[in-house]
Amino acid sequence: MAIRLGANQYGKAEVRLVRINRDTDVHTIKDVNVTSQLRGDFDAVHTGGDNANCVATDTQKNTVYAFARKHGVHAIEDFALLLARYHVDTFDHVSGSRQEVQEYTWNRIATPEGPHDHAFVRSGAETRTTVVTKDGDAEWVLSGFEGLTVLKSTGSEFHGYPKTEFTTLAETTDRILATDVAARWRYTGTAVDYDATYASVRALLLEAFATTHSLALQQTLYTMGESVLRAHPQIAEIRFSMPNKHHFLVDLSPFGMDNPNEVFFAADRPYGKIEAAVVRDGAPDPGRAWESVPGFL
Amino acid sequence: MAIRLGANQYGKAEVRLVRINRDTDVHTIKDVNVTSQLRGDFDAVHTGGDNANCVATDTQKNTVYAFARKHGVHAIEDFALLLARYHVDTFDHVSGSRQEVQEYTWNRIATPEGPHDHAFVRSGAETRTTVVTKDGDAEWVLSGFEGLTVLKSTGSEFHGYPKTEFTTLAETTDRILATDVAARWRYTGTAVDYDATYASVRALLLEAFATTHSLALQQTLYTMGESVLRAHPQIAEIRFSMPNKHHFLVDLSPFGMDNPNEVFFAADRPYGKIEAAVVRDGAPDPGRAWESVPGFL
Amino acid sequence: MAIRLGANQYGKAEVRLVRINRDTDVHTIKDVNVTSQLRGDFDAVHTGGDNANCVATDTQKNTVYAFARKHGVHAIEDFALLLARYHVDTFDHVSGSRQEVQEYTWNRIATPEGPHDHAFVRSGAETRTTVVTKDGDAEWVLSGFEGLTVLKSTGSEFHGYPKTEFTTLAETTDRILATDVAARWRYTGTAVDYDATYASVRALLLEAFATTHSLALQQTLYTMGESVLRAHPQIAEIRFSMPNKHHFLVDLSPFGMDNPNEVFFAADRPYGKIEAAVVRDGAPDPGRAWESVPGFL
Amino acid sequence: MAIRLGANQYGKAEVRLVRINRDTDVHTIKDVNVTSQLRGDFDAVHTGGDNANCVATDTQKNTVYAFARKHGVHAIEDFALLLARYHVDTFDHVSGSRQEVQEYTWNRIATPEGPHDHAFVRSGAETRTTVVTKDGDAEWVLSGFEGLTVLKSTGSEFHGYPKTEFTTLAETTDRILATDVAARWRYTGTAVDYDATYASVRALLLEAFATTHSLALQQTLYTMGESVLRAHPQIAEIRFSMPNKHHFLVDLSPFGMDNPNEVFFAADRPYGKIEAAVVRDGAPDPGRAWESVPGFL
Repeated sequence: MAIRLGANQYGKAEVRLVRINRDTDVHTIKDVNVTSQLRGDFDAVHTGGDNANCVATDTQKNTVYAFARKHGVHAIEDFALLLARYHVDTFDHVSGSRQEVQEYTWNRIATPEGPHDHAFVRSGAETRTTVVTKDGDAEWVLSGFEGLTVLKSTGSEFHGYPKTEFTTLAETTDRILATDVAARWRYTGTAVDYDATYASVRALLLEAFATTHSLALQQTLYTMGESVLRAHPQIAEIRFSMPNKHHFLVDLSPFGMDNPNEVFFAADRPYGKIEAAVVRDGAPDPGRAWESVPGFL
Repeated sequence: MAIRLGANQYGKAEVRLVRINRDTDVHTIKDVNVTSQLRGDFDAVHTGGDNANCVATDTQKNTVYAFARKHGVHAIEDFALLLARYHVDTFDHVSGSRQEVQEYTWNRIATPEGPHDHAFVRSGAETRTTVVTKDGDAEWVLSGFEGLTVLKSTGSEFHGYPKTEFTTLAETTDRILATDVAARWRYTGTAVDYDATYASVRALLLEAFATTHSLALQQTLYTMGESVLRAHPQIAEIRFSMPNKHHFLVDLSPFGMDNPNEVFFAADRPYGKIEAAVVRDGAPDPGRAWESVPGFL
Repeated sequence: MAIRLGANQYGKAEVRLVRINRDTDVHTIKDVNVTSQLRGDFDAVHTGGDNANCVATDTQKNTVYAFARKHGVHAIEDFALLLARYHVDTFDHVSGSRQEVQEYTWNRIATPEGPHDHAFVRSGAETRTTVVTKDGDAEWVLSGFEGLTVLKSTGSEFHGYPKTEFTTLAETTDRILATDVAARWRYTGTAVDYDATYASVRALLLEAFATTHSLALQQTLYTMGESVLRAHPQIAEIRFSMPNKHHFLVDLSPFGMDNPNEVFFAADRPYGKIEAAVVRDGAPDPGRAWESVPGFL
Repeated sequence: MAIRLGANQYGKAEVRLVRINRDTDVHTIKDVNVTSQLRGDFDAVHTGGDNANCVATDTQKNTVYAFARKHGVHAIEDFALLLARYHVDTFDHVSGSRQEVQEYTWNRIATPEGPHDHAFVRSGAETRTTVVTKDGDAEWVLSGFEGLTVLKSTGSEFHGYPKTEFTTLAETTDRILATDVAARWRYTGTAVDYDATYASVRALLLEAFATTHSLALQQTLYTMGESVLRAHPQIAEIRFSMPNKHHFLVDLSPFGMDNPNEVFFAADRPYGKIEAAVVRDGAPDPGRAWESVPGFL
């Protein structure tokens, strides 16, 4: 009945870094949010307040900024790998590291003279994400995004579900289907062109959402995942969290009006919550890749 | 020393309306958030709970949906005007109305066969806004947006400010300039092509931000406003609320590194808060146009 | 048709200050968020980027911290007055200042030995606020709070409202009444015991909400304001923004159940939006007290 | 290289339920947010859009409301267990269920006549939480809370950490220690007085935070967990996510002032992120208790 320390990790969260590349007059910008965490032999700091092994979270923050200067920031997956390897390779008592990065995208401002050299406007779409986990020599890379909001105004049905004592929902052959796609996919290795793959996966997911005639959001989700796995052999699995954002047809009959799927109330809560993984048989084991990744199975 | 009711208004806030136009197989979508408020003879409901004059907020909500069916939703300014006029014209005890609308924009999803007919992705940029105020026969229309985030990686200086006993800021001839532009402009009348004007104003503001060599955010703001007033005679004034979102150069010298304006910490709080109006001399009086518009002078 | 600068103000927003008083081993804590803004002769910085008059927002931030050390932080209204007076008195070209402060409250942690000397827990209720405006010699003080959420499970009716072509709401003699009270009140002078008055006003508002049998939220609002003005002659007026947070009775009849006002769905949007001022006849003119106070008439 | 469905769950999220108990004139209120999810044989809906097994999320929502009427809402853990058991017991193809509930607390409004019978004010402190997972016959109950914000103005040191090439942090023997405690603890069974245990755990955690002289936030965390496990044999483990919310001493020396730990800047980001479990040796295996619990290891 002894009490002991269980699983643990610590670090610095949400290190906001903007890296400007000024090699030429045509600047480029990387705008990221880094969370750096370490795992290893940290019993003494927990049980006795002995910090001898405890690389300060402030030091981890400094490391992010120093690495941004030294190595630049290119694909966020590569930057996260650099940081994870540095910590595990440098400190004997650090056996693992988890590096999470979010990236915000910017476009050049259009002017009559063309895209501006050093003025940018945030493109408000999704946030690109990565979670890199290193445990000894093992390394796992997740790429993904959150906040990609999509909607189909037709081409979505929902019927044939069980009728229980608590069922009141009417079946429909034409409804609005809307969701905020959050997706994360796992690579089988680390020798990947992350930027190119990201662009391809994003396009494939949008296309599959648009072109799938939907009988259930789960079906749409699966089709989206399948299209990614078919196109990218280096992706072992893809996981989704997709709220079903309900749009309710407004009953206008009290006002003597019909409503042929034109006027909808967009509800906030409750919403459907659909989570699933699409996986490739025989892919390498996920190991610790998905540990402490919020919002996914 | 009598106590009495002062200024008041009431209504239904944040009526979330999605209006699909299905006239052809190529659907269009309007996604808006409407806040409808009434002003007038409402003493009795306040002082005695007598609701005889109190058009229920639920009724105002229904009116939004019924009007969306009957009239469609085109420019949000026109939709807000329709609602304001209906309330003032219909109810004797309603002398005025304030209609505020936010609009979220969607793009068609790109597929190999071209833009999709009925599948859309939210474009995450700014939110378009309008506030329409009607007081008896008088009508005022404000158009605007919020959440347009822009950044210049160079071309911004700040120096020559007073040095007081509490000044520690160093002068600079090269800094990052970043802000979230919230803007609202007032028209001199209501016979306006609001969609075309909106697109033009947005482009002019972005261009002025990009091309102004900045000595102060206030100067950038004023130049942005001036460019709009020069191009659009039907705009009487434009008001801005522009936070100065600080990006601090990280001191890398403890690590033996220089930092030639490449690595920045993007701070959350505190931030500069710059608010100003740019106005046309001799324009019509604003009247009640700006009443209860949050975040502006 | 000349273009010129209109109304403007600028400063540093959301200066997060925690002030510990360590005069004895029993510490006290003040946790505030200060927004400091200046008004005056700022044409040159807008129209030409000339900063000679532009007291840097960074300097305003430093002033907040230096004043916290020098004067301590007692009632937030007094702290805001100190800051406003300093700026107007010190700088010739500064004719006015607006100082807004939010305060977060903390309680001592209870231990078996009694309330702890230096360990605190945030009390999650409302945020106390002040807006102090100084214009030359004139000074106005608003006190208030936001985020005080209250609910009555009975003692609220709503009926007798006009039935229009768009009315579907059923009348009721028993409903849940719930709102987030945001209130601001204006003093007639500045020689006030702000802390004692705050505590009294808060208690009066809660009591009036609880004990008023409500026929409309507007009536409850007015009764609340009236009780404050009756008790506090130094308060000239009080303004409220009170959303009507709807709780809908769930229809359980499809499951063979009644629902005698027991099971409710708490909706997010839309909500009623009720705004009104209760004023004392003959009170001093508000002047610029309410300028750029968001969310109020 | 076949592609297949991996782990999945689905349901209705954030069902906002307010349950009034009106058995006497002294009403009581339960205000909760329920997320109901099912696991089981859902391949067909994903791979083919066949909904025959897919209990609609709308039906799950209805079940929440019907159960609130039928059984009342007492401890949220018991309510979640009822819902999980209903789904697994009722539907052959449902093998498991995850029920998550958040609870918001209310106090009676104080009046001169005492606590009011049916008027309440939200107590803004932490949100109580539970996650109940059922997998076949196995059941796991997590209790917890989030958003308990605490601060010590002294009695916290930090020194003795490794000095690396990227270390700049100065050691200190007196700093502010502040955190938002999120905690979840796992019971060994389901025959628990959840309300009483919750109150005890909360008090123990606050007391341990207050009375521990801290050499590291990790040490404080561990001491907090240890005090809970010592007092409650039916708790197998407790996990924490505790941001280190930095309060930086403001350098007032440019203004000729010292700052003896009195004036602090409360930073938003970055923050330390400390996550750990404290476990009882020999406790039952956690099984699936922690699956898809965000923010914890």
